[in-house]
Amino acid sequence: MFIGAQVSLYPMTSDFVGVILSGLEALSPYKDQLRIETDDMSTLMVGSPDPLFDATRDLFARAAQGPAHVTMHVTYSRGCPGEPDDPTCRCDTLTTAQDLTLDRRQQLARDAVRDAPVLGVEIDVQFSLYVLGQDRHMDEIYGCIDFLKESGTFLRSKNFCTRLRGDAGAVFETVRQAFLRFGPAEGHVTIDLTASANSPTAR
Amino acid sequence: MFIGAQVSLYPMTSDFVGVILSGLEALSPYKDQLRIETDDMSTLMVGSPDPLFDATRDLFARAAQGPAHVTMHVTYSRGCPGEPDDPTCRCDTLTTAQDLTLDRRQQLARDAVRDAPVLGVEIDVQFSLYVLGQDRHMDEIYGCIDFLKESGTFLRSKNFCTRLRGDAGAVFETVRQAFLRFGPAEGHVTIDLTASANSPTAR
Repeated sequence: MFIGAQVSLYPMTSDFVGVILSGLEALSPYKDQLRIETDDMSTLMVGSPDPLFDATRDLFARAAQGPAHVTMHVTYSRGCPGEPDDPTCRCDTLTTAQDLTLDRRQQLARDAVRDAPVLGVEIDVQFSLYVLGQDRHMDEIYGCIDFLKESGTFLRSKNFCTRLRGDAGAVFETVRQAFLRFGPAEGHVTIDLTASANSPTAR
Repeated sequence: MFIGAQVSLYPMTSDFVGVILSGLEALSPYKDQLRIETDDMSTLMVGSPDPLFDATRDLFARAAQGPAHVTMHVTYSRGCPGEPDDPTCRCDTLTTAQDLTLDRRQQLARDAVRDAPVLGVEIDVQFSLYVLGQDRHMDEIYGCIDFLKESGTFLRSKNFCTRLRGDAGAVFETVRQAFLRFGPAEGHVTIDLTASANSPTAR
């Protein structure tokens, strides 16, 4: 199994380099658990979903604490058949998820969001979950959408994606649960996510 | 068939509102062909791939002509089973694509990129193509990657995505061909794309 993300932070300020560098400091606690490589378009993070989602959450929460409007795009991926197996990506939640009924997985996902830490940073997210390599991919996606609607962070459905809103802790836990508990454990699952904070557009 | 995109433009300047409004002017020629709706996170565009990819290209090319570092994220989608049929999304290229061999589709895709207009704006793109609802989804993805490598806009492969570089005309035509000619004509296909211009990071 290979799990990781391509992450890009976009501060809408002329001091965008300063905001990016400050945000990257929030990754320090995860440098032992994730392989992190930055190029001119995005930062690759490879590792298990626990540090992976915590790191992207903390990166964005740090940047969102400043006054500037800031957004982040993340492509999360697990199980891509074109990637090598990597033992650092091992995840027990993922391994056991598919032995459970859809109802039970939805319950565990809701519990995890309820128990998420509160970071004190309000954010908006929209994201799409893609379950690949499966004839009946929409069953798992509809099951995930049912969980999202009961997650406490659901804002509304949009064409091609779902809007979430809330504290960064609960919102990123919602996305992690979507990534972990829906779609086959050994399958190819991806998420296309955009986060936003401090938008001048009226909420 | 329902075809469209969620589009977000991110200028890394304190005058980001001005750059976004200027970019949106580039959409005027497409307002009769696309349904366009903007909220606080993204702009929905619904319609056939001809105006859809031209509009996203022109939006980004306009914004990239200024001095500011600017990026854009687009989620393109066709054939999502959860969306209604929309006659304005009809596309003959898509309908006939799957009657052709992979070799022939790759050839037609290369021809289209060769004939793309030159906009005079150099851009970077990275994107992922997702073919959903199919057991053997990687066959079409590998076929698409072979086309990308011969497209003239290929820069390099990355984990989870492919980097392109070149004139905005050729780059967006490459992405449109990937979207149209790979994956089943009636299937669910999406693209997660990030574009970048005027980055201060050394190229």
